[in-house]
Amino acid sequence: MGKKVGVILSGCGVYDGAEIHETVVTLLALDRHGAEAVMCAPDIPQMHVVNHLTGEVEEGAERNVLVESARIARGAVRDVATVDAAELDALILPGGFGAAKNLCDFAVKGADCDVDPGVAALVHAVHDQGKPVAAVCIAPALIAKVLGDEGPELTIGNDADTAGALEAMGAAHVACPVTEFVVDQERKLVSSPAYMLANSISEAAEGIERTVATLLEMA
Amino acid sequence: MGKKVGVILSGCGVYDGAEIHETVVTLLALDRHGAEAVMCAPDIPQMHVVNHLTGEVEEGAERNVLVESARIARGAVRDVATVDAAELDALILPGGFGAAKNLCDFAVKGADCDVDPGVAALVHAVHDQGKPVAAVCIAPALIAKVLGDEGPELTIGNDADTAGALEAMGAAHVACPVTEFVVDQERKLVSSPAYMLANSISEAAEGIERTVATLLEMA
Repeated sequence: MGKKVGVILSGCGVYDGAEIHETVVTLLALDRHGAEAVMCAPDIPQMHVVNHLTGEVEEGAERNVLVESARIARGAVRDVATVDAAELDALILPGGFGAAKNLCDFAVKGADCDVDPGVAALVHAVHDQGKPVAAVCIAPALIAKVLGDEGPELTIGNDADTAGALEAMGAAHVACPVTEFVVDQERKLVSSPAYMLANSISEAAEGIERTVATLLEMA
Repeated sequence: MGKKVGVILSGCGVYDGAEIHETVVTLLALDRHGAEAVMCAPDIPQMHVVNHLTGEVEEGAERNVLVESARIARGAVRDVATVDAAELDALILPGGFGAAKNLCDFAVKGADCDVDPGVAALVHAVHDQGKPVAAVCIAPALIAKVLGDEGPELTIGNDADTAGALEAMGAAHVACPVTEFVVDQERKLVSSPAYMLANSISEAAEGIERTVATLLEMA
């Protein structure tokens, strides 16, 4: 069997959930390396439901993060609270606003954000077992919050305000072009900007494919 | 500028909309070939909203095909009724139940299905202008309905009942393995089974990547 890699989803759609292109490119890269994706998501309401045609929040609408994540996962997704780090060889978090609205609330609270307990526990446990963790797009903000006391080296691209918020949580931010990635060898972390910077799906994919390859090498 | 390829979406999620993996792999393949995707979808209610975690229809729930398609398109999707075939060099339809529930109602009516008027008009117009059309997964059923009087050669993989329904609409069905594709050179049609047969995202991707490359060669 290939390596088992946890993939934490946050819904289905860039503005209120997991970024769909980033997630699918991640799944394809894992599969092409012979790794098995263990998809999971928190079983909680989404912070927002956003009409992706207009970009506006649909007031009063409710969707569940786990149920919407199941769209990308073709049904094969588990409650993150039930996933044991011992099952996994590595962990990856795709981006999208869901990573900053549902997995944590960085999108509204910045450095003062709270992280979903199940997500925080899994990130901590995988990391504490000496296994590598990757985060894409805005998801490194969550890693900065969870592992900030270790001073992790991470990238969210080059946005000064967002980079400043990561540093306020204890991370060392490293600017990075879209097709590249940043490795923190000591803490076994990999991050790549993807749609924080990408102007096309190919640009995002190049950085993510390299991130996945590196994650699997470290696992 | 590269070639412009219409991509007709049918929502967002395999059980009630566009198959997400198939769609993203299509978009990535187009972009890597330097082609521009012109994403579009009908502005109509979905036939169903399916909870992708349980597989059950959510009674009373309503979602719009164009609005949900915008999730995969990151907002960049147009009402299919506003797309002029003259803008396009080629057309491709990813699969998912949405292609058989929203773009047409093949999933419930089989060979007696009706096709959304805007979708039917665009497929007809692109085809009548001598431009190639590709369809993936179950979407060849829609092509069989629209172009059945020309006896198009198409594949949906190897499912006998579905193949029989395509033949009842006038198509000549050709059995095809998941990583391959079928070309009707005379009618400029390309089709590939993808998740009609795929056991993994890599299997689906291989056939789709070949389908896109062939579509662009024919354009």
